[in-house]
Order: sequence, then C-alpha cells, then structure tokens
Amino acid sequence: MPLPRDYSGQTCALARSMEIIGERWTLLIVRDAFYGVRRFGEFAAHLRLPRAVLTDRLTTLTEAGVLRRLPDTGRREVYGLTPKGVALWPAVRALTSWGDEFYAADGGPRRVFRHADDDAPIAADGRCTGCGVPVPVGDTLVTPGPGLAPATAEDDPVTAALARPHRLLQPLLIPSTTQRPTRGTHS
Amino acid sequence: MPLPRDYSGQTCALARSMEIIGERWTLLIVRDAFYGVRRFGEFAAHLRLPRAVLTDRLTTLTEAGVLRRLPDTGRREVYGLTPKGVALWPAVRALTSWGDEFYAADGGPRRVFRHADDDAPIAADGRCTGCGVPVPVGDTLVTPGPGLAPATAEDDPVTAALARPHRLLQPLLIPSTTQRPTRGTHS
Repeated sequence: MPLPRDYSGQTCALARSMEIIGERWTLLIVRDAFYGVRRFGEFAAHLRLPRAVLTDRLTTLTEAGVLRRLPDTGRREVYGLTPKGVALWPAVRALTSWGDEFYAADGGPRRVFRHADDDAPIAADGRCTGCGVPVPVGDTLVTPGPGLAPATAEDDPVTAALARPHRLLQPLLIPSTTQRPTRGTHS
Repeated sequence: MPLPRDYSGQTCALARSMEIIGERWTLLIVRDAFYGVRRFGEFAAHLRLPRAVLTDRLTTLTEAGVLRRLPDTGRREVYGLTPKGVALWPAVRALTSWGDEFYAADGGPRRVFRHADDDAPIAADGRCTGCGVPVPVGDTLVTPGPGLAPATAEDDPVTAALARPHRLLQPLLIPSTTQRPTRGTHS
C-alpha cells in the first residue's frame, strides 16, 4: 500500500490549513504582517531568514491568497494581508498565547496584546479583560511586554518600531532608507 | 553574517510554539489525540503516514511534554495529552475553523464541534452558539458534519468510530484486534 508523504489527497480542514501555514517560518511571516511589516527587507531583517526562503514563503502565501502584493513607492511592492489572511488572527493569537504560557522568558511575554479602546490586555480567548468584548483584529495593539529586552542601537528597524505600542494591520512607519540587515529578534 | 536555518536562538513565543507543533503531521497527531486516538496503530491507520515519521513525531511530542505515554493492556503503551497538550485546543480549533472557512468540501465541514450540554454548535471563538458559554475541551463533542463522506467498510477504525458523536479527550473505544492498515481519511 503506497503511503502518502505529504498532505495531498487529504480532505480535512486542519490538513489544508497546515499545508499553507505549517511550513517553517510561514506563520512568523504572517504574524509580522499583522504587526505591520510590509517590505521584503523588513521581513528579512526582522526574522533573519535566508532571502531565498523568504521569497519562497511569500510566493506560497501570495498564491494561497493569504497575502497580496500592493504598490509601494516607485516600482517597489509591499505585502499585505488579504481578508483570508486576516482570518488567521485567532490561530496566530492562540499559538502565541500557548508559547507564552509554556515558553515565556523569565520576565514574562515579550509582547502583550491590548484593546485599543481601553488599553486592557486581551485574554487568550480574544476578549478584552477590561470591557469583555471580543476584540477585532484592527482594534488590537501589540505592546512591549515585561519579557522584552531593552532596545539597543543594533535592533533591526522592525524591532525598534515595535518598542512602542502599535495597532495591528497598520503599516509600521519605517523609512525605506533605514533598512539594514542587523540584529533581528523575531517578535 | 551567519543566517539561522532554524528557530534556535529565537525567543519569541510563536517561534517556540512552531518549533514543537510546526513540523509536518505534528498538529494532526495532536488533533487525533483530542479525538481520543491513543494507540500507535490507530494514529498510523487514520493518518496513513509512514511509521518512522509517526515514531519521530510521537517522540518529539512526548519529549516536549505535549503527549505522555500511559500503560495499556499487557506491555503496550498508549499516548495521551498532558495539560500542556490540552492547552493547544484553542490553536487546533482556530486552525481547523480557518480550514473549514476557506477549504471545506462542497458539502461543508467534515466535522462539527458541539457543546455536550445542549448539542449546539461551537462558534469560532470557542463559545457555544446555544448557551453562550466558553466550552471547555472536555465538554466538546466532535460530530459528523455535512461534508463527511458516507461510512464504508474500508474505513479505518478511527474514521469508523468517529462516524458517531464523540466527546473530546475520551478514548475512542476501538478493540485492539480491529486495527487494520486500511483507508484513512484524516479527520
């Protein structure tokens, strides 16, 4: 009996999801897109992954309809989440929350998600711990947590920009001239 | 500058999570454990993956503290989720829900999660659409959905057992003599 070596031919929903976002690095790229990372060089500097791998993953995500290319200044393009990509937020939040619970550094989580309306932390189920509403992605702030290392001059531009609270899905304001392949810290 | 080829050295929560459950097949094995699959042969028959790969993934999950080995009849062992593994349920549910939304077969989802107390479907945020409470994992039923293919005599024992509603985390009652490497359908 031939045994399948990949997920092809499977019909289950989870297998389909993992085909798209189960590849190494892919979900970190999606997470960065929620944080407002849009340019190739910003993903590369923040995640410190080989450019060929990043190119491959961005192609996969674009072909799957999770990301789309958008015009930037000049002839350049940037990447943004589609509605299908934005729908991944509960999964990204749940996996991040699980990692925080079991693998956080001594100081606690590096990032804390807060409700923009009242600045209260968002619980693991996606509801605001202050007002109790389910917080839409676009009303979510990613803010520095107690486990975040102090900023240094070697931080990559994405890490530096995320040292301040930032609303998800809003582009990070990073001048394109500051893109340097420096120390990335990944979240 | 040396570029990392894996997630080692990363400190972010999502990267840690993906180190454990981002490997191919791993989250499907965890999902099956929620469904009550416990024996090596049952995972193998249901997921139809090579036994060497299954052995590797079960070792990874056990070493990571997501699964633990428990005594079975005789000298055999079975696998069960630890509390750390059970904590993955929101992530498994979110990824399954995303797959259902964007990749469900024509008929709809193959499995529907329901609240055992009132049999109402559970929403994407984990709350019961009937009574509104956040449904604990152990009060969740996995039930056949509209997209599930009709049962056949060739179904593997796990698929056959899941043709009826089943409470998550409860072992599937499969006589060990019925373990046959037949058609697996993965969810």
